[in-house]
Amino acid sequence: MALDLRKAGLATEVVGVDLNSDNALKAVDLKIVDKIQTEDKALRDADLVIVAIPVNAMCQLLPSVLDAVSEKAVVLDAGSTKAQICRAVSNHPRRAQFVASHPIAGTENSGPEAAFNGLFINKTNIICEKDKSSDSALTLAQRVFEALGLRTIFMEPEEHDKHVAYVSHLSHVSSFLLGQTVLDIEKDEKNIFALAGSGFASTVRLAKSSPEMWAPIFEQNLDYLSQALQEYIMHLQKFHYHLLKRDTKELHRIMAGANEIRRVLDGIELKTKSLAAQPAGNTQ
Amino acid sequence: MALDLRKAGLATEVVGVDLNSDNALKAVDLKIVDKIQTEDKALRDADLVIVAIPVNAMCQLLPSVLDAVSEKAVVLDAGSTKAQICRAVSNHPRRAQFVASHPIAGTENSGPEAAFNGLFINKTNIICEKDKSSDSALTLAQRVFEALGLRTIFMEPEEHDKHVAYVSHLSHVSSFLLGQTVLDIEKDEKNIFALAGSGFASTVRLAKSSPEMWAPIFEQNLDYLSQALQEYIMHLQKFHYHLLKRDTKELHRIMAGANEIRRVLDGIELKTKSLAAQPAGNTQ
Repeated sequence: MALDLRKAGLATEVVGVDLNSDNALKAVDLKIVDKIQTEDKALRDADLVIVAIPVNAMCQLLPSVLDAVSEKAVVLDAGSTKAQICRAVSNHPRRAQFVASHPIAGTENSGPEAAFNGLFINKTNIICEKDKSSDSALTLAQRVFEALGLRTIFMEPEEHDKHVAYVSHLSHVSSFLLGQTVLDIEKDEKNIFALAGSGFASTVRLAKSSPEMWAPIFEQNLDYLSQALQEYIMHLQKFHYHLLKRDTKELHRIMAGANEIRRVLDGIELKTKSLAAQPAGNTQ
Repeated sequence: MALDLRKAGLATEVVGVDLNSDNALKAVDLKIVDKIQTEDKALRDADLVIVAIPVNAMCQLLPSVLDAVSEKAVVLDAGSTKAQICRAVSNHPRRAQFVASHPIAGTENSGPEAAFNGLFINKTNIICEKDKSSDSALTLAQRVFEALGLRTIFMEPEEHDKHVAYVSHLSHVSSFLLGQTVLDIEKDEKNIFALAGSGFASTVRLAKSSPEMWAPIFEQNLDYLSQALQEYIMHLQKFHYHLLKRDTKELHRIMAGANEIRRVLDGIELKTKSLAAQPAGNTQ
């Protein structure tokens, strides 16, 4: 975001705040931020604050961020859950300065070295509880998201959390556990190297994602994710049952049904096709 | 294979045999094959026969293919399972003319339009029961696989089937059922379009694969796939249990363990990096 907002001319000075001093220094070295400041100083002077931290820390920190910023500042978050984050600031006197948002983009990589220009182009952004944000905050937020290339849609937090449980969080769980299952059995990794094609690489890519980022997301979205996970396990078990019965017709029917995802994926691919050189892809 | 073997100068004439006359005509139109012939005629005249059909049809057809070819011809298969295929011809008088192979490459797309040059470059090929093939058959087979850019390793059929159950077939099952789970809940597809990022696209890509090809693979590899599937479901259920208990430490431990797959994937990516423009990837 820092890279793209500077490139778009929207950010004239970018100040970084990070608990991890190694990452803070790297962000300066890589010219992602102009300088590093303490939280207090940075928040007091900023026109726009983007809080991009794990969602459990977000709930804890966001009220004090709103306390610390100036009366004209706008605060955005980039959390992958929305209900608990919105709840954490719902009665804050400066709630109107906050725009609850989820730009659906990212890769399985973390840290300053993972940053690159153009990540958000043609991706979707969700703003939740837009009526609780002031018109001026929403206007600045929209300028930011448009500069990044995001298309924004609006949802209520619970609706957001339910859908992302299925189309994002479940994918991550399935990938983490697929990785674990294969590592477990293939103790001799050489076999995986030799036998795994890019089909395996594709399904298991998200298993590289950061536990520090994802454990809090899963816990905050426990109810919907648990429901999604139960349905997924139930579908796997039904497939297994038909497989054991060698019920070819039913296996066909299930797979042909799943083939319908092609239409959805074609939509996703159309969305992102205009990117000249697309990197590994987003994971949130 | 036809495209690459011609390009490499190894095939001077390529003859196609297909039950589906539409696909046969398309293959001629797309210059994948020089002409279409009946099975009998094509087999009688061929120096090299590559049987690339669903694995259930392979077991039925392979003995009669060996019956029909000349005494100098070499027959290769490209099936994703090996134990039942090897068993189908184990006592055939011409077993030595057959080389049981699995070039691990392909995409989720089917039919003549899905063919492109370079699919096999830097991919792995498995030859099973090499001692049952004659030296001359193995020599020609190796020339073919080298011309395609494949690196060949040798395995016994059961060993092959066990490993591919984990590193390939399980990926396909997990992807098919992930697709089904999401389609099931997201009846209004617009939500998937809007919310799904390329992370979802990556994990669910294999759900586009052909049921006609995969149902027989799953059934032939039932024992190992069933074991892999049970382990996967067990891992998912354990994860779900720890999630419901909000056991952050254990969730972290599981995900950090799965992160180890990064080393494996880096190996796969290194393998394929030399490709100038890699297509969607292989799925077998």
